[in-house]
Amino acid sequence: MKIYVIGIGPGNMEDITPRAIKAIESSEVIVGYSTYQELISPLTAGKEIVSSGMTREIERCRAALGYALAGKITAVISSGDAGVYGMASPVYEVCAGHPEVDIEVIPGVTAACSGAAAVGAPLTHDFAVISLSDRLTPWEVIEKRLRLAAEGDFVICLYNPSSKKRSGYLRRACECVLGYKKPETLCACAENVGREGGSFRLYSLEELMDIEVNMFTTVFIGNENTKEINGRIVTPRGYKV
Amino acid sequence: MKIYVIGIGPGNMEDITPRAIKAIESSEVIVGYSTYQELISPLTAGKEIVSSGMTREIERCRAALGYALAGKITAVISSGDAGVYGMASPVYEVCAGHPEVDIEVIPGVTAACSGAAAVGAPLTHDFAVISLSDRLTPWEVIEKRLRLAAEGDFVICLYNPSSKKRSGYLRRACECVLGYKKPETLCACAENVGREGGSFRLYSLEELMDIEVNMFTTVFIGNENTKEINGRIVTPRGYKV
Repeated sequence: MKIYVIGIGPGNMEDITPRAIKAIESSEVIVGYSTYQELISPLTAGKEIVSSGMTREIERCRAALGYALAGKITAVISSGDAGVYGMASPVYEVCAGHPEVDIEVIPGVTAACSGAAAVGAPLTHDFAVISLSDRLTPWEVIEKRLRLAAEGDFVICLYNPSSKKRSGYLRRACECVLGYKKPETLCACAENVGREGGSFRLYSLEELMDIEVNMFTTVFIGNENTKEINGRIVTPRGYKV
Repeated sequence: MKIYVIGIGPGNMEDITPRAIKAIESSEVIVGYSTYQELISPLTAGKEIVSSGMTREIERCRAALGYALAGKITAVISSGDAGVYGMASPVYEVCAGHPEVDIEVIPGVTAACSGAAAVGAPLTHDFAVISLSDRLTPWEVIEKRLRLAAEGDFVICLYNPSSKKRSGYLRRACECVLGYKKPETLCACAENVGREGGSFRLYSLEELMDIEVNMFTTVFIGNENTKEINGRIVTPRGYKV
């Protein structure tokens, strides 16, 4: 009994690994949010497709477990990497009472890495990844982490910086960070990386406060050494160049 | 004039993206540490190969710039993702005076993600990535970041936890973290992920202090909710399961 939990990368057939493609091809049932199902539709013709809306994660995991227990090789798909705010942990949790189900997580290119590549090289030193979604995490915890990451001069990568129900969260995050990082700290936003209309822009931390972002934006806040080189954001590793 | 900076993933042909393969195939010169050259040798027959030892990063970047300025399409390769402690930033820095050189970073599966997939799902909540190498970063900065990340109850992923010249660093790191995280905090080590002899093991934070690691080990230190499920390490996202 087998469940693959597969990170499909940023959302095109060029950034998905051969291991992920093989796992999808060998699966009989593909479980995942409908947007991601569309992205991999070239691979899933003829397979049983189980889609559900964005916030039905546990429902999808239970469905996957049901198919696996019925003997079908089942794939649960996440965008990016399934282990970074993705489906890997809920699948393990739902399958906790079923050691007979073999769970295999197939890693992918997460938004921190695909976004970083688009904007330059912001993550070439110690960094913290923080989600601004307070759907499952109290905002006070998010604020505390933002402050501590800023105090440590980590480069900060923000996932889920905004959504329809949450506006102004990026501004609040910047306010936390501004207690420790300078207003001129170099930042960048990457949007729809690896998909049509992908774009990026550089900002100062002060400018970043007023930027409109959405759930497809990945935000990078540099450390004290992060600088602009030829229109990109670069965090030096520390070499004498 | 073109330089690709390519993350080749953990080190086998199954976890390298089609985009990375195409970029390598379209390059005339492949610059990189010799171990990584071997990993992608099926793709580079007939190309000009420029290898050098582990610590010659700037030398390799200068060589790449030279080839690019001479009109050759050049690839600089990193294991994992080139943007995470990889060659992306030094390539930008060395090319700072040459806006005519088009640098394209091709993202890959970084050790945090491939290691996480091997040990379970440790990174499904906010996490900090910290390198224990003090070759380019003062140890005091590393210690400060360890303490702040632990205080924020981030999951912590350690790169470069040891090397021939540095032993005892993981123990020192654990001592910093133990000021904030409980001794029974669940941890894991992944070794040689995606390569022959790949393995992993789970530990408590207290046990982790005495573990022998090497430069091919990726270390994960959980948050207060991280738990063991069916022999793997899992950080819940916060769903009611």
